[in-house]
Amino acid sequence: MKPVSLTDASIDDDFWTPRIQTVRDSTIDFVYDRLVESGRIENFRIAAGEADGDFQGRFYNDSDVYKWLEGACYFLTTDSDADLRERVDELVSLIASAQEADGYLNTYFQLVEPEQKWTNLHVLHELYCAGHLFEAAIAHSEATGEDSLVKVATALADHIDERFGPDGYRGVPGHEGIELALVKLYRETGEQRYLDLAEHFVDHRGDPDSRLKYEAFHPEEIAGDAYDHVVEDGEYDGRYFQDHAPLREQETVEGHAVRAMYLYTGAGDVAIETGDDELVAVLERLWENMTERRMYVTGGIGSSHEGERFTGDYDLPNETSYAETCAALGSIIWNRRLLQLTREAKYADLQSRTLYNALLAGLSLDGTRFFYANPHEMGPEGHPLHDEDPNRFAAQRQGWFQTACCPTNVPRLLASLATQVYASDDSSLYVNHHIGSEATVVVDDTTVTVEQESSFPWDAESCLTVTPAQPATFELALRIPEWCTDVSVTVAGEETEATPGEFLHVEREWTAGDKIVFEGSFPVTFVRANPNVRSASGAVAVQRGPVVYCLEGQDSPRPLHQLRLLPDGDTVVDHDHELLDGVTTLDLDALVPEESCWAGGPLYQPDSETTVETTTVRAIPYYGWANRGEDEMRVWVDAESSQL
Amino acid sequence: MKPVSLTDASIDDDFWTPRIQTVRDSTIDFVYDRLVESGRIENFRIAAGEADGDFQGRFYNDSDVYKWLEGACYFLTTDSDADLRERVDELVSLIASAQEADGYLNTYFQLVEPEQKWTNLHVLHELYCAGHLFEAAIAHSEATGEDSLVKVATALADHIDERFGPDGYRGVPGHEGIELALVKLYRETGEQRYLDLAEHFVDHRGDPDSRLKYEAFHPEEIAGDAYDHVVEDGEYDGRYFQDHAPLREQETVEGHAVRAMYLYTGAGDVAIETGDDELVAVLERLWENMTERRMYVTGGIGSSHEGERFTGDYDLPNETSYAETCAALGSIIWNRRLLQLTREAKYADLQSRTLYNALLAGLSLDGTRFFYANPHEMGPEGHPLHDEDPNRFAAQRQGWFQTACCPTNVPRLLASLATQVYASDDSSLYVNHHIGSEATVVVDDTTVTVEQESSFPWDAESCLTVTPAQPATFELALRIPEWCTDVSVTVAGEETEATPGEFLHVEREWTAGDKIVFEGSFPVTFVRANPNVRSASGAVAVQRGPVVYCLEGQDSPRPLHQLRLLPDGDTVVDHDHELLDGVTTLDLDALVPEESCWAGGPLYQPDSETTVETTTVRAIPYYGWANRGEDEMRVWVDAESSQL
Repeated sequence: MKPVSLTDASIDDDFWTPRIQTVRDSTIDFVYDRLVESGRIENFRIAAGEADGDFQGRFYNDSDVYKWLEGACYFLTTDSDADLRERVDELVSLIASAQEADGYLNTYFQLVEPEQKWTNLHVLHELYCAGHLFEAAIAHSEATGEDSLVKVATALADHIDERFGPDGYRGVPGHEGIELALVKLYRETGEQRYLDLAEHFVDHRGDPDSRLKYEAFHPEEIAGDAYDHVVEDGEYDGRYFQDHAPLREQETVEGHAVRAMYLYTGAGDVAIETGDDELVAVLERLWENMTERRMYVTGGIGSSHEGERFTGDYDLPNETSYAETCAALGSIIWNRRLLQLTREAKYADLQSRTLYNALLAGLSLDGTRFFYANPHEMGPEGHPLHDEDPNRFAAQRQGWFQTACCPTNVPRLLASLATQVYASDDSSLYVNHHIGSEATVVVDDTTVTVEQESSFPWDAESCLTVTPAQPATFELALRIPEWCTDVSVTVAGEETEATPGEFLHVEREWTAGDKIVFEGSFPVTFVRANPNVRSASGAVAVQRGPVVYCLEGQDSPRPLHQLRLLPDGDTVVDHDHELLDGVTTLDLDALVPEESCWAGGPLYQPDSETTVETTTVRAIPYYGWANRGEDEMRVWVDAESSQL
Repeated sequence: MKPVSLTDASIDDDFWTPRIQTVRDSTIDFVYDRLVESGRIENFRIAAGEADGDFQGRFYNDSDVYKWLEGACYFLTTDSDADLRERVDELVSLIASAQEADGYLNTYFQLVEPEQKWTNLHVLHELYCAGHLFEAAIAHSEATGEDSLVKVATALADHIDERFGPDGYRGVPGHEGIELALVKLYRETGEQRYLDLAEHFVDHRGDPDSRLKYEAFHPEEIAGDAYDHVVEDGEYDGRYFQDHAPLREQETVEGHAVRAMYLYTGAGDVAIETGDDELVAVLERLWENMTERRMYVTGGIGSSHEGERFTGDYDLPNETSYAETCAALGSIIWNRRLLQLTREAKYADLQSRTLYNALLAGLSLDGTRFFYANPHEMGPEGHPLHDEDPNRFAAQRQGWFQTACCPTNVPRLLASLATQVYASDDSSLYVNHHIGSEATVVVDDTTVTVEQESSFPWDAESCLTVTPAQPATFELALRIPEWCTDVSVTVAGEETEATPGEFLHVEREWTAGDKIVFEGSFPVTFVRANPNVRSASGAVAVQRGPVVYCLEGQDSPRPLHQLRLLPDGDTVVDHDHELLDGVTTLDLDALVPEESCWAGGPLYQPDSETTVETTTVRAIPYYGWANRGEDEMRVWVDAESSQL
């Protein structure tokens, strides 16, 4: 299947439209100002010879400019905005001016280590930055119809292909991302070399004579410093950047979570283009490992801040969970490739889980504050790693980061959300997500307009109106999310059998205005984690529809550690239009210690002298936490045992 | 009341005798060898001019030599041991040789900073080391009848009194300990100045013009470095060494736990001598704060490794609990003073709790491995602070520490344990502890021999035989521990009313061979912590008699985090003579997740799809953990809620 393009789709959704609007009205400007303030744009000006000065910031700062540009262009694709367009035009022109005659473009190396280009792939992110340029260029072309940035991109891509292609020395990027971008550029330009290079980057990771390994052992030959953390006791451990084995031999998701997601996404893109079933099987195997061993219930991934990485099976600490916002984005885009490749609903279910929870939690409701790392529990004393890095490890979202990957990533995903909703192939139209929207796709040579109204994520109701240009027979595949019960689907008034967790396939002749009405329930689900997950033992998470809930201290009559939820208790579901820009809340029954038993202030006493009483606590969606001041928070809450 | 002296008491107890014997046969030699190896004894040799070389180790290393000497002398008090006596004699002679003509004695200053003596009270432990010399000297005198070391002690005490007494500049020690030692020396010598100086040190902590504060702000005037951690944002915070307010105004136990315990002990000694009721009330208030807010269920105190100190109310983390073995010793000796002052059984109860649990856990069963910090939980990955200090934060007891306070402290306490058991005053004989033993005390001019047989801590049975030199009327006060039920006491065959948690007072005419037979039960008690204790929420600890239990992984059918104990379940109590040198074990009922529910390997699933099953897990005494290899361990175990 092929996703709908942004020019052919738009969102009109009670839940998502206000959020995307906030990103457009606030986040885009807010982030742009930070790019200016931090010198990220000035670096291009200096490289272009239009200003004097030294390179500012980190060696990957160009990527933030490209990512902002990509997001801004997505907005320009669907909306005209003269001011935004002017900033985009200026930036594109500046980027073009900064490019060297041979196509090279990376302001860090141009300004700091011009003689050392391409010598330090394992640390210095030249290929990663190039990939983000390619993505921005394609978005720019789509938004404006102009090829000015694509020309910059192809000149750089050609330069890279000369060096890394068949006749080059065939290193691979230390931070992936260029693979998927090269496939995008191949699709945009038809240039086979770009696809070949992407395939090369996918297939030559973990080579026995890995360039990344070589660099780690030869710091004297490279720009900047080598990573010492990839060498332990004299032995190379390439897991950090998925260089420990050829991808096709990898069995587990390893290392830096964002790198891993970008690699798998690029590999998925290669497989889409080449039909490489072996590669698909590898990705399915890695997906199983991730989802059955190494993923938070929110879809968050990469549990350790040390290396921002995957650790061992079932190691999912809550207070120190890293669950980087960018890794959530990476999972969402990887899952789109798996969905395209396999047409299995579970990948869209995981996209949905990750989008509504792990990703959305990264952005404040007002669009100007960000979590880089996403805790799944906040104690009354704040983040346990706060002293190590008060910016990344805080009880509240922050305005900016020296490494600003997350603030520049969320806008580009939300601005292009419409492309996630629909897809098509020769004979089918896929409705992957329940999001109010409209799209026009071509199925079997017929142009089909599809309109969707949806009350997700708060209620399991959607209505699709299908309007082919003329009556036509094709299949419509509607995803029935795994968390629905009591599902009823009528197609043009006719009841149809549907199974949660699968696509409902309806092949028929469609005529203008045919409606598919989906109705179901979102039961409140108390979720248990596998008994091997030490951090969730004895506890439950609460989910309703795709939304994972949490407790914040202010909604609880007691400190959160005193609560023991009653999964068999009563739950009151209510929609509060004011709270957190409108959320469905859950009032849950819980046991708490009877306070009178402790009135005298003893520190310890026999269990037999104590009793418990029932109370009620309000749960809110996890994504909405930390929008009402500093507070304690829990996703996993102690719960009474299930019955014997 | 006055405790029995070591010359008048001896232990003969199934539980304690083998342990004390291990300390005598192994620990004493093991520690001595470490003192030699580490240069601690050589420092004295160099200071005495008998050897060349540089001072080795830390500035408080003299104290370890004195503490070893004190413990060794306690053994010599009751047993002749030519080899040990020879080492003691040599050491005493060496110490005397190292003393300067004016009485000064501290090998660190003598060898490293001879011009800077007494300039850095807040860091450099001169007074603390002196205190330990005084204690060793008195033990030596008691053991040998010789006054050679007492002479050294009094010369140093006189030197100190000149400097810190009425005409001196009246600083106070940065690490307390000398206060209690000065009172001991006063009792030994009758020298009033020593008591006065102790009183001064007790009463001048927290002076507005604190010398400790002055030093912290004037690093240029002092030996070595100043502590930077007692100054925050330019403000002095003297809590670390209890210098934040005059002791009489202190409301909470603060700062370094060992320092606090030694101060309170010294203050108790002063109060015993002066009859200062105000001071007693202060200590009672501090005791309440500690026992109702800041103490582990094992009696361990000082929850944070940062500053080895008390933190806030109810802050009692399990995995990182510091609960220094020396702080447990400090609590035991402080509680003896409170017991002496008030005659309330609760202080002996806490001594007992601390002795069987927090203190004893610090020593391996073979007597040659030590915990400095005592965790109350060990996860499968080991100690979370391991990387910070693999020696102090380990999953197993260690052989030695650069700061070796704990290995030298445990022997001196256990070697003198007999002195804790009995006490007397003009009209009463107190039996404070149920430990098999014999003692001779004088009550109301009558010499009374008391023999005790006891099956503590495994069973609540003791039998006392009282033999006055001639029939005499006096009161015998027998402590009925708080954790006993079904108590029956017969005095010379007559049933007597007794209340757990109080002393049973029996005033009568005693004749030779009168027996007091105590019988009771030790129910298995599931203990809950105050709901404010976040780290114990939803969990129980298990106690039987004075013994707090724990679970080790090897005794559980499942990883410990999967267990949920059933306080209302069946418990099987069994005594295993082989296990851990003989312990009473508890087989406890617990719920665990039904494994078949998770057979497919899902990471998450609805609670409604899962069930639990019952199992049994064996609990062992906490003091015995980590004697069978590295393993996970928990004192607090998740438990089903009490009934509504």
